Amino acid sequence: MKSLKNRPIGIFDSGVGGLTVARSVRKELPDEDIIYFGDTARVPYGNKSKDTIIRFSREIMSFMMDMNVKMVVIACNTASSLSLASLKRYYSIPVVGVINPGVEEALRLSKSGRIGVIGTSSTVSSGTYGKELKRNDPSCKVFSKSCPLFVPLVENRFFSSPVTRQVAGMYLKDLKKKKIDTLILGCTHYPILKTVIGKTMGSTKLVDSSLAVAKYVKKILEKDDLKTLSKKKGKTRYYVSDDPKGFSKVAGIFLKEKIKANKANL
Amino acid sequence: MKSLKNRPIGIFDSGVGGLTVARSVRKELPDEDIIYFGDTARVPYGNKSKDTIIRFSREIMSFMMDMNVKMVVIACNTASSLSLASLKRYYSIPVVGVINPGVEEALRLSKSGRIGVIGTSSTVSSGTYGKELKRNDPSCKVFSKSCPLFVPLVENRFFSSPVTRQVAGMYLKDLKKKKIDTLILGCTHYPILKTVIGKTMGSTKLVDSSLAVAKYVKKILEKDDLKTLSKKKGKTRYYVSDDPKGFSKVAGIFLKEKIKANKANL
Repeated sequence: MKSLKNRPIGIFDSGVGGLTVARSVRKELPDEDIIYFGDTARVPYGNKSKDTIIRFSREIMSFMMDMNVKMVVIACNTASSLSLASLKRYYSIPVVGVINPGVEEALRLSKSGRIGVIGTSSTVSSGTYGKELKRNDPSCKVFSKSCPLFVPLVENRFFSSPVTRQVAGMYLKDLKKKKIDTLILGCTHYPILKTVIGKTMGSTKLVDSSLAVAKYVKKILEKDDLKTLSKKKGKTRYYVSDDPKGFSKVAGIFLKEKIKANKANL
Repeated sequence: MKSLKNRPIGIFDSGVGGLTVARSVRKELPDEDIIYFGDTARVPYGNKSKDTIIRFSREIMSFMMDMNVKMVVIACNTASSLSLASLKRYYSIPVVGVINPGVEEALRLSKSGRIGVIGTSSTVSSGTYGKELKRNDPSCKVFSKSCPLFVPLVENRFFSSPVTRQVAGMYLKDLKKKKIDTLILGCTHYPILKTVIGKTMGSTKLVDSSLAVAKYVKKILEKDDLKTLSKKKGKTRYYVSDDPKGFSKVAGIFLKEKIKANKANL
């Protein structure tokens, strides 16, 4: 068995979205090995219940434990919102989500303290972002809006179509009126729509938490003395619960490189 | 144990779409009991692989067998396209899908023999509709197009929004050029968009197979001497794999009545 430090970092998501996080972690920690898991047989998570998301997340954690990871990153806003607390209590290795790094980044960027959050229906109705923002800065004002069509629009490559601009206009109309100065992209798919969202929101600063998450992962590894001793370039292995072919095709959008994924049965 | 004839009919779908079929079966066979199962924890099926859809369908069939059903209707075009043949070989009770009834209806309606098929990515790429149309009438010409955004548009209540009209225009542009006179709505969600699809396609006849399926189910019950002996109004029980509350909310769109669903773990 590999020494604890040299074990891989586990990163999981409901599908492809978490690859934006995997990419940032790869950049920030070039020597680390990574195991990526996308639950493509059961994607999306964004409109499913808390109990179901916790059950799915635990099944993926078991897979990650079998793969001997030294820490796990939940690279999915919905799973982070609904299952992080439960997983942290359950497992002994560090488990981190994408919410807190995004929250810290938003509070750092915002001057007016008026912060918007967009995400899936389950993320938004969980209220997790609001609670975490308020816990860090009780004086901030939070305005949320679920944008359930953004994920299918990205996955069907409607990146800058007039349809996407129209949908963005509808979803973001109320947030614009609230005069927020910072908007958290609370779903790993949304950075792909940064241009459209940015044009719709004008000068509002957009928070793509994948970079913040990578820095946070690095901090945890340093704090817990878990950084790899290897000086070689780290490897990433990709696993999915559905056919790897379909995944590899869409993965390019997020990863900007070609990859080969393996099938993993949970 | 109930006598074979008085057992319920099982109807399953990835989620809510199959409720249009359940509604038609209820109308056609008012005395029959129905068990409806929606796989809401793993919905949608439309972009998943054949192996995964067969695995999910078998798990649902086990649930149906435990519920002592006398026959099963796969009220989902994707599952019918990908798993019907496999399930028919596996189980002794009659298993019917939605493809053949839709195919027969389309061939009955079409005068020019130029038939269009729209459906999810998995349904269209399986080519099942084309094969079945050709098997029944080798002279017909079939033109298919996947419309992957239609399901999320329906589930997010974009029924007649300009967004939906725009998406329909894009998806159906090529089919219009092919001068089809009949269009199979090859996904149980699509009848909800009948008005938008109809306006886009002009005089093309639209085939909503739910009525044809109900008539087919009646025919099978008569042929196999499986009609219920009960003269009371039949009952429908609804089961879902995710939180029943969310399902009950969306179910109204399809069923036009309020229902209460139960959780079933597969």
